[in-house]
Amino acid sequence: MSDDHKQYATYNDVHNLCKKSAKGPLEKFQINLIIAIGGGGYIPARILRSFLKKTPDAPNIPIQAIGLSLYERLGTDSVEEAPGTEVKRLQWLDMNSSMANLIGKNVLIVDEVDDTRTTLKYAVEELEKDVEEARKQLPPGDERKNKETKFHVFVLHNKDKVKKGNLPTDMTDNDQRYCAAVTTGDVWICYPWEAENIEEHDRQAKLHPIVAK
Amino acid sequence: MSDDHKQYATYNDVHNLCKKSAKGPLEKFQINLIIAIGGGGYIPARILRSFLKKTPDAPNIPIQAIGLSLYERLGTDSVEEAPGTEVKRLQWLDMNSSMANLIGKNVLIVDEVDDTRTTLKYAVEELEKDVEEARKQLPPGDERKNKETKFHVFVLHNKDKVKKGNLPTDMTDNDQRYCAAVTTGDVWICYPWEAENIEEHDRQAKLHPIVAK
Repeated sequence: MSDDHKQYATYNDVHNLCKKSAKGPLEKFQINLIIAIGGGGYIPARILRSFLKKTPDAPNIPIQAIGLSLYERLGTDSVEEAPGTEVKRLQWLDMNSSMANLIGKNVLIVDEVDDTRTTLKYAVEELEKDVEEARKQLPPGDERKNKETKFHVFVLHNKDKVKKGNLPTDMTDNDQRYCAAVTTGDVWICYPWEAENIEEHDRQAKLHPIVAK
Repeated sequence: MSDDHKQYATYNDVHNLCKKSAKGPLEKFQINLIIAIGGGGYIPARILRSFLKKTPDAPNIPIQAIGLSLYERLGTDSVEEAPGTEVKRLQWLDMNSSMANLIGKNVLIVDEVDDTRTTLKYAVEELEKDVEEARKQLPPGDERKNKETKFHVFVLHNKDKVKKGNLPTDMTDNDQRYCAAVTTGDVWICYPWEAENIEEHDRQAKLHPIVAK
């Protein structure tokens, strides 16, 4: 992708996308725990929290962080081929405390962008698997044994392109547990927290804002 | 404090304070792990990470989150007295994995504001204690046994006022391991991620910006 495809989101754009989503499609999810995928998920996660409806059991919705990194894995022989993609865990939730704490919750997984969907697929599948594992490790008679955990996904931007990973169909069908604030073309999105010069970033955002598809 | 004392920081203000600090006083700390105190520490932590110098062992500096809440504890009898303050852990690091991972690191504890210093004192003291506990639990011969852990503190704003909590003197003397981007008066600071209306917040920030003391 060339620089011509760059589109810029300002902090205030991000703030307003979080506000609109929290007061709109995300409200019905009744979220009581957020998992931010680092590094892009931290800032939207924190802003979302200001706008998500507080519940008696979660006056301040806790934010847990996981770190995932997408590696472009090159083919093993010398012939150049389309790179595979692999997700590496940089930071994960502890099985005994944090993971067990997810049981019975409405969990919102937050990232900035849904590009190839590889990272999100990995996060959802691995978290679902580990929560079930943590559930098995609960002592007999623990009241959480039968409480359902529901995972939901929020991204600021979903790129309309062929995805390499699939989320569970009951999550994405009719966007039941999936929410993208904006669907964009296959463009290069520049986020403000990565800007070396934020004033120049804002100037570029005026010239090349994010365009909804 | 009345509304007259409100001062406003925009997202771009926060961005530039993080940039200036990361490229200035924080650089010498050679940070390789960040602990964000939620909810105010998340956003500065993520922005700082973009500007902190990457090291070979930490190309992306991991961010761990802890949740602390300051409670105003009322006196136990009916006579009105100055409220005491108590810190409550909403979220902490797991002893076996996350806490052990701090051993031998240069850790930067990040919060948005240093008001009474109660929360920061609690965070530094408890983390220091728990890291030493995690160190004791390492198996004999583990190479991390003798590696020093150094805690540092970063806040966007330090209010110049009598503090209720003290940090270790070797941390604050000559600001050796303590960095506040700005020292302010005892004012009410409004952060952008708490703004219901970000455009109005920015207008207020033009009228009532943060004033360094």
